[in-house]
Amino acid sequence: MYTVQYLYDFTKTVFMKMGCSEPEALQIADVFMAAELRGLPSHGMIRIKDYYQLWKANRINVRPNICIIHETPSTAVVDGDGAIGMVSATRSMEIAIEKAEVAGTGWVSTRNSNHYGIAGFYAMMALKHDMIGLSMTNANPLVAPTFSVSPMLGTNPIAVAIPAGDQPPFVADFATTPIARGKLAVAEKKGEKVPFGFVQDKSGTPSDDPAILKAGGSMLTLGGDYVHGSHKGFCLSSIVDIFSAVFSGANFGPFVPPSVAYLPVLEQKVGVGTGHFFGAMRIDAFQEAVVFKSKMDEWITTFRNAVPAEGHSSIIIPGDPEREKEARIRKEGISVIPAIAKEMKEIADDLGVSFNCE
Amino acid sequence: MYTVQYLYDFTKTVFMKMGCSEPEALQIADVFMAAELRGLPSHGMIRIKDYYQLWKANRINVRPNICIIHETPSTAVVDGDGAIGMVSATRSMEIAIEKAEVAGTGWVSTRNSNHYGIAGFYAMMALKHDMIGLSMTNANPLVAPTFSVSPMLGTNPIAVAIPAGDQPPFVADFATTPIARGKLAVAEKKGEKVPFGFVQDKSGTPSDDPAILKAGGSMLTLGGDYVHGSHKGFCLSSIVDIFSAVFSGANFGPFVPPSVAYLPVLEQKVGVGTGHFFGAMRIDAFQEAVVFKSKMDEWITTFRNAVPAEGHSSIIIPGDPEREKEARIRKEGISVIPAIAKEMKEIADDLGVSFNCE
Repeated sequence: MYTVQYLYDFTKTVFMKMGCSEPEALQIADVFMAAELRGLPSHGMIRIKDYYQLWKANRINVRPNICIIHETPSTAVVDGDGAIGMVSATRSMEIAIEKAEVAGTGWVSTRNSNHYGIAGFYAMMALKHDMIGLSMTNANPLVAPTFSVSPMLGTNPIAVAIPAGDQPPFVADFATTPIARGKLAVAEKKGEKVPFGFVQDKSGTPSDDPAILKAGGSMLTLGGDYVHGSHKGFCLSSIVDIFSAVFSGANFGPFVPPSVAYLPVLEQKVGVGTGHFFGAMRIDAFQEAVVFKSKMDEWITTFRNAVPAEGHSSIIIPGDPEREKEARIRKEGISVIPAIAKEMKEIADDLGVSFNCE
Repeated sequence: MYTVQYLYDFTKTVFMKMGCSEPEALQIADVFMAAELRGLPSHGMIRIKDYYQLWKANRINVRPNICIIHETPSTAVVDGDGAIGMVSATRSMEIAIEKAEVAGTGWVSTRNSNHYGIAGFYAMMALKHDMIGLSMTNANPLVAPTFSVSPMLGTNPIAVAIPAGDQPPFVADFATTPIARGKLAVAEKKGEKVPFGFVQDKSGTPSDDPAILKAGGSMLTLGGDYVHGSHKGFCLSSIVDIFSAVFSGANFGPFVPPSVAYLPVLEQKVGVGTGHFFGAMRIDAFQEAVVFKSKMDEWITTFRNAVPAEGHSSIIIPGDPEREKEARIRKEGISVIPAIAKEMKEIADDLGVSFNCE
């Protein structure tokens, strides 16, 4: 077990050693810690090696000049200059919030970025400004459109954070696939099958083999199959891709660059880097803030009081499970599996920083 | 078979006889025809009786004073004054477009409205202005949150329309449930079962009985069950409800008023009427319009060229099936089943207008 502070300082130090400025290294560490604390370790310390190797391969820019290349009162297109995703995403969301201060809402599409960690982090940045936050990103292609066998889309998440008053905020943060990529890896390691509806084989036949992606298979969109609305999941995933990449001039769909150095840079490009989309809406752009928050409290309370199905004690209000995990992990500390701790130690040694491999 | 013009004129005449102004009756007829033409008859002529009966019951306002009650450069809250949904929705989307002209984007949340027909109609209004359109609405509760048996949400659709250049526009328009309510009714009439993942019984057990809603059952959110991501469908449906009703001060969740006169007005209210949410974004708020359109063409072409799964000849680009239906129906005419034609004749007789019941 590590304390949050220890891993936070370690992450900051690693990225500063790689050449990041201290403020930017802190931004990166913030997003890493948010992933661990919210119970999403697939986007936490396990990824530090990926960024490190991308840096070694000269595929990320640790001294980016992030700038607005086009704007209106409520919109901007941001060029991330090849930055680490957390850095360009944080700056982009700040711009969305600044726009919203003046115009009521702010919408930013970002190109020339990289993997940005958990989508929810940026949506939640809006909360302390009494704003609704929205964040989405495209990602390297693993997911096939309905009726296709071509992996053309990422797991393209959508996050929406909405402030409340006495209640905690509503925070939805979900991939537009039935499951995240990491769950397939876990099932594969355990030698388990997965339910039908997650993946298909190379000819498009439903499969329960979590390793099928290595044999030409692909993941399916939310809905799982056409009968259950996978075409709606395809719509959602497409919207994320278009808002993130067509709006900004990033690479879309099958051309999104890999977020790991062991996969080669794609030869064909249709834009620059990975794309994200961010939104911020002032709650008082719609209702007086105190009225808005009280209505959100009423909404959340109403839904909390839904009658549970047999075998369940309550429904899940979006954001509740992550907040419960955060409270527990802050107290107990962050667990890092030995294989990941070993990788972190190797990076630490390489960069000449200390890491206590428990 | 009826010509589009005949049903268009009939619809206009019926709503004018009910007291609507001619421009507003034309708006209503436009949305009715769009539903029929796009192959969504569940939102077409079959609904004219519902509006007629709501009018007879004094539950819709045919002479509304629709007004903006709060605004910023990029947002507005609109009070629909109890209008027929099509009228308040059309005006609200116009306001979103006007806001976008100046601020880059426009976002409108509407309260005190009623059932507005197909969501896609309003999203598509943006296209001719070289804007991206977005439309969503809450609806009377039939759908249970994951792990609950309480029908607390409508089928809450989301529509997004994005202009392209040589390619037709991308138009996604989908309920946040695996299927629309109407498909259950069709299966029930045919005496057929439905696949698991659509509905559950009153204790929350998965069911294949399309009539289960009458026995205390409920519809499920997109994903169908927790394993397949129904909590993500719940997030989506909740976002639609909150953007439509908490933003505007309409009734949310279980308090959304019924869109038919044979169901009583609810005693408890948490706002006024039904709520909608609309968005318009100028494409040149992100990219020069010609660049944006050419990139969308490239996106659409790339996805059209996805390798089809075995047994399929191509994938579905959102909007394609509806456009193909529209081309066919414009040529062949609109088919109205005898039971609906009979209802239309009764309304016609009652109002003293002519209707040719084939």
